[in-house]
Amino acid sequence: MRVLIRGVAVIPRPEAGVIPKADVVIEGRRFSAVVVGEEVQGPFDRVIEGEGKLLIPGLVNAHTHLAMTLFRGLAQDRPLMDWLEKEVWPREKKLTGEIVHWFSLLGLVEMIRSGTTAFADMYFFMEEVAEAVEKAGLRALLSYGIIAPKPERIEPELKKAESFAREWDGKAEGRIRAALSPHAPYTCGPEVWKRTVALARELRIPIHTHLAETREEVERFRAETGRSPVEWLEELGVFGVPTLAAHCVHLSEKDIEILAAHGVSAVHCPTSNLKLACGIAPVVEMLKGGANVCLGTDGAGSAGDLNMIEEMRLAALLAKVHTGDPQALPAPEALSMATWRGAAALGWGKDLGTIESGRRADGIMLNLAQVHWFPNHDPLANLVYAGQAADVDTVFVDGRFLLIGGELQTLDEEEILGRCRELAKRFK
Amino acid sequence: MRVLIRGVAVIPRPEAGVIPKADVVIEGRRFSAVVVGEEVQGPFDRVIEGEGKLLIPGLVNAHTHLAMTLFRGLAQDRPLMDWLEKEVWPREKKLTGEIVHWFSLLGLVEMIRSGTTAFADMYFFMEEVAEAVEKAGLRALLSYGIIAPKPERIEPELKKAESFAREWDGKAEGRIRAALSPHAPYTCGPEVWKRTVALARELRIPIHTHLAETREEVERFRAETGRSPVEWLEELGVFGVPTLAAHCVHLSEKDIEILAAHGVSAVHCPTSNLKLACGIAPVVEMLKGGANVCLGTDGAGSAGDLNMIEEMRLAALLAKVHTGDPQALPAPEALSMATWRGAAALGWGKDLGTIESGRRADGIMLNLAQVHWFPNHDPLANLVYAGQAADVDTVFVDGRFLLIGGELQTLDEEEILGRCRELAKRFK
Repeated sequence: MRVLIRGVAVIPRPEAGVIPKADVVIEGRRFSAVVVGEEVQGPFDRVIEGEGKLLIPGLVNAHTHLAMTLFRGLAQDRPLMDWLEKEVWPREKKLTGEIVHWFSLLGLVEMIRSGTTAFADMYFFMEEVAEAVEKAGLRALLSYGIIAPKPERIEPELKKAESFAREWDGKAEGRIRAALSPHAPYTCGPEVWKRTVALARELRIPIHTHLAETREEVERFRAETGRSPVEWLEELGVFGVPTLAAHCVHLSEKDIEILAAHGVSAVHCPTSNLKLACGIAPVVEMLKGGANVCLGTDGAGSAGDLNMIEEMRLAALLAKVHTGDPQALPAPEALSMATWRGAAALGWGKDLGTIESGRRADGIMLNLAQVHWFPNHDPLANLVYAGQAADVDTVFVDGRFLLIGGELQTLDEEEILGRCRELAKRFK
Repeated sequence: MRVLIRGVAVIPRPEAGVIPKADVVIEGRRFSAVVVGEEVQGPFDRVIEGEGKLLIPGLVNAHTHLAMTLFRGLAQDRPLMDWLEKEVWPREKKLTGEIVHWFSLLGLVEMIRSGTTAFADMYFFMEEVAEAVEKAGLRALLSYGIIAPKPERIEPELKKAESFAREWDGKAEGRIRAALSPHAPYTCGPEVWKRTVALARELRIPIHTHLAETREEVERFRAETGRSPVEWLEELGVFGVPTLAAHCVHLSEKDIEILAAHGVSAVHCPTSNLKLACGIAPVVEMLKGGANVCLGTDGAGSAGDLNMIEEMRLAALLAKVHTGDPQALPAPEALSMATWRGAAALGWGKDLGTIESGRRADGIMLNLAQVHWFPNHDPLANLVYAGQAADVDTVFVDGRFLLIGGELQTLDEEEILGRCRELAKRFK
């Protein structure tokens, strides 16, 4: 299969800016050429007209709980623990594999429609999530979320996490990879972490966890252990394994040095952090310190949606007010966080995240003919500061098209919306 | 003209929540009934099916510089003064009435498409802006922006402001009203303010200005005058006239008391304030103190777009992190700021801002069949935390339809985009 995207504006990698017009060739699962100013030789199995469109690397959502689309809009504007204890946890007890499957599909439709091509998800019933991802055609790093506050929970939780990882890592033609996910330092003790690290090393897979999300959590942890959660995980040897750490809101200077020294990927989730009043993560400081910082939405139950364009915008805006510097986190840096930095965090760094010959063909096209892009002095700045999910016109992963001209290619949206509407009635 | 919107979900006013299904009747320029659970008597000149839609009061953007859509995306991520002095002001010298007219139309298309029905605009060539507004069919409070740092500028500036106000106040069947706009306390001296107040009293029109946007501006002002800009304006008697004060980021407790005591409307512009690293306005404190706080985008040159749904979301999110309270500024309050509080700020408080019998028929319908609304436990929360401009399906002002099923009714979008594309080439 050889595909030509003809005469399209391209951002091959954010640091290099915008090529106003190029021909982009996909051969099989990879980009094979980005050609400017000369004729590209056919034949092609498919030609897609790129005029009036902007082609960028697919967006990477590095921290989600996909099936929590079920809880979108439910009992909003509540304190986190109150919301979890009274609203979410009682309902999560009623979850079944079937429900997780359908609400994962719902989240996948939303992600495709807003330009996400790869994501890192942590939840329960992960086999059902993985089947949904395989069907949808996205790329994902998936993990079972281990919560083991009591010793007797350790064995069954680790077993679930391990069996999922062994079964699914490398599946769906390599589009699905597995991770191990102790939920957080405050919900899993040293034994869980040590055994997870050993297993991650054996399976050569990463760890995906929550880290330093709220001030209270960090302060309590420090009072109990004499260490910050970051210091504690380092001592346990966790960061010897590639690690995605969601949130990273409350960090000391030393914490930032530790994250950077070990190449930990911090997943900034600005909407979720604001909405739950957690705080503003020190993104600029982490980037300056040399850490890899990428972006995530968190679950739609807490964040409202799975829209990565808005997370880019919010990250760029928040960094400015947080540092007092309007030049902080400029648009290209925000797009880097949403593309190649996310790809690196998920473990596809060498293979993904830019539009260059030899890289995996994961990309999206946005429609520039919308009024809110005009007069389009700078499409990259407009993408970050004015772009909308509805501008996403075409989406492909591994050279396979998931959305063309706004039409879903792999999923039946009507069926998914209908099933979710029915299933949601049990959760009022 | 009698119109029925049949079987629609309605938020008549945000505090009252969502009516899942109602028939809404418009007679002429006003709502005449919101009927639940019984048959509505015809005949009707037009029947609009509301199933799967959400009807809310039209959004009010209380601070814009419409024609600055011309500068969208231009030299972004720069310090404010650097951006103004090197990029914007030299280009503004090249502005003509024609250019302002077309880029105002561009902004009007964007506003209609994102659900704004009324706005407050301050700029130059305001006659051209007013003509564009009249054609588009929106409702607006318009004013010429007076900048008079030197004494010899006072007369010509006041004259322009006055002649525009006298000519346009009450025009376009009452949809256009005029205001007077000394640009800010630091760009206009006491004489300008005093004469503006006298003229505003004579013409019975409000004042629209910028207030306390940056810390430096407020500190310098206090050093020079011994007063905060708010205290200074109060002493000059400005707040005896209904006043819209854009930004209000850097306020003392006393300032907040003054604004509340005089019924000043503070226009919170969260995107612009973040993007220019100005700070986060004390919105919750102002509301608690009894001030009217509404929402604005500011110009698209600095803010990126004219999208009020995003300003609602950002206001709700920022208030939470700013106060440390996830219950701060809940979704209904954000929607109030974007609707009836904005209407009150623009001087239409008794006539506009809710969907109730006797009120002006300004409203918008959003398409609930989009994936990011599902499963829709709470349409009001979803509107604020997941809603997108592209969900706006239908827009009407004074009972006249400006957008139906995503189709513009009063403006020729293709012509406007084409003209703006050509005109923008002079401003690269």
